[in-house]
Amino acid sequence: MERPKLQVALDLQDLPSALAPLQKAAPHLDVIECGTILCLAEGMHAVRIIRSLFPDKPILADVRIAEAGSLISKMAFDAGASWVSIVSGATLNTVEAVMKEAAKHPGAEVQIELIDGWMWEQAAAWRDLGVPQVITHRSRDAEAKGALTWTERDLDEIRRLTDMGFKVTVTGGVKPEEIPQFAGVPVFVFIAGRGIYAAADPAAAAKHFQEVIAATYA
Amino acid sequence: MERPKLQVALDLQDLPSALAPLQKAAPHLDVIECGTILCLAEGMHAVRIIRSLFPDKPILADVRIAEAGSLISKMAFDAGASWVSIVSGATLNTVEAVMKEAAKHPGAEVQIELIDGWMWEQAAAWRDLGVPQVITHRSRDAEAKGALTWTERDLDEIRRLTDMGFKVTVTGGVKPEEIPQFAGVPVFVFIAGRGIYAAADPAAAAKHFQEVIAATYA
Repeated sequence: MERPKLQVALDLQDLPSALAPLQKAAPHLDVIECGTILCLAEGMHAVRIIRSLFPDKPILADVRIAEAGSLISKMAFDAGASWVSIVSGATLNTVEAVMKEAAKHPGAEVQIELIDGWMWEQAAAWRDLGVPQVITHRSRDAEAKGALTWTERDLDEIRRLTDMGFKVTVTGGVKPEEIPQFAGVPVFVFIAGRGIYAAADPAAAAKHFQEVIAATYA
Repeated sequence: MERPKLQVALDLQDLPSALAPLQKAAPHLDVIECGTILCLAEGMHAVRIIRSLFPDKPILADVRIAEAGSLISKMAFDAGASWVSIVSGATLNTVEAVMKEAAKHPGAEVQIELIDGWMWEQAAAWRDLGVPQVITHRSRDAEAKGALTWTERDLDEIRRLTDMGFKVTVTGGVKPEEIPQFAGVPVFVFIAGRGIYAAADPAAAAKHFQEVIAATYA
């Protein structure tokens, strides 16, 4: 099983606050996420600057497309994003429009964010359109309760989505000590946010995540 | 019945393109919308600049909050937004968080964007939380077909939402010649986008909208 990647979600309100920890943690990061908050705060400028600083890393622009798929994805890809996100509530027309735009940008990928209420029939339709990635959250109730566990249901969902052909990203306040629970489960990317960017030592925090991932998927 | 307001949706990819038609049309506009596309392109800077130019007009920041409600709404209100939008798929916790943030900003209002699949029980819960506004789209099928009509079902939905206590905004490529179809229907705001900002004469286009609205609701 391939070792999952580590992604930092930069959910910060301005670029200076995001760039300082990013620069420290970057050697230990596989993917950089311009979070929804950062995109809304700074616009595509945020993607453009992070691309200029890290020309070789995949960048997810978490723009959460609901409508206007070609326009928003074009903006993000033109700014340097590698991947863009669409919410699961978007129509198939919107998903198709984003896939078409992605096809014009070499290496670009599209990710569907699975929001409570999504259905397996939708997932099948996304696969038919060639969508390569989905992102799944820990159940919100569990996250709200601060649970450090992932349910068998969460893990089964990841397995089933992988069997369908998706690369599955996992988010929702993942902590390093939880990662061993995923042993044997095919995760494409683990996302960490504050756990890295708000750490006293962002480089050490990212390195620790990578070590736990490597040990879990040894 | 109160005369509906006219809102321009600035769904443009940069501020210069938005500001030129806005400045022309502004004397005939009641509400200015920083569209999702403009917010993502330019960040909250867009709201800040439009607020500085139009200190007295209501501004909707169409940030379509799905999560991180307090943070995103605070960013928008701090930048000068009067209203912020939440997608109907957001949890009630998120709606509540945005309402709490709005309460800290005098005159601030919250709007739920009704996306296919929303339910009347949700609408009741939003009212219980004090949400004052909803925004309803023409059925996407109709819009895709370029239909110039609104169905009795669309209009009934507006009446029923108004009866519940909501101020109802109507969007979806509304053209001036369609507005008479709303006679007797309690609309809070009509949104026009390209019909105003892409018009050869944005001021004349906005003025024409206002005349048709005034005649319909005379």
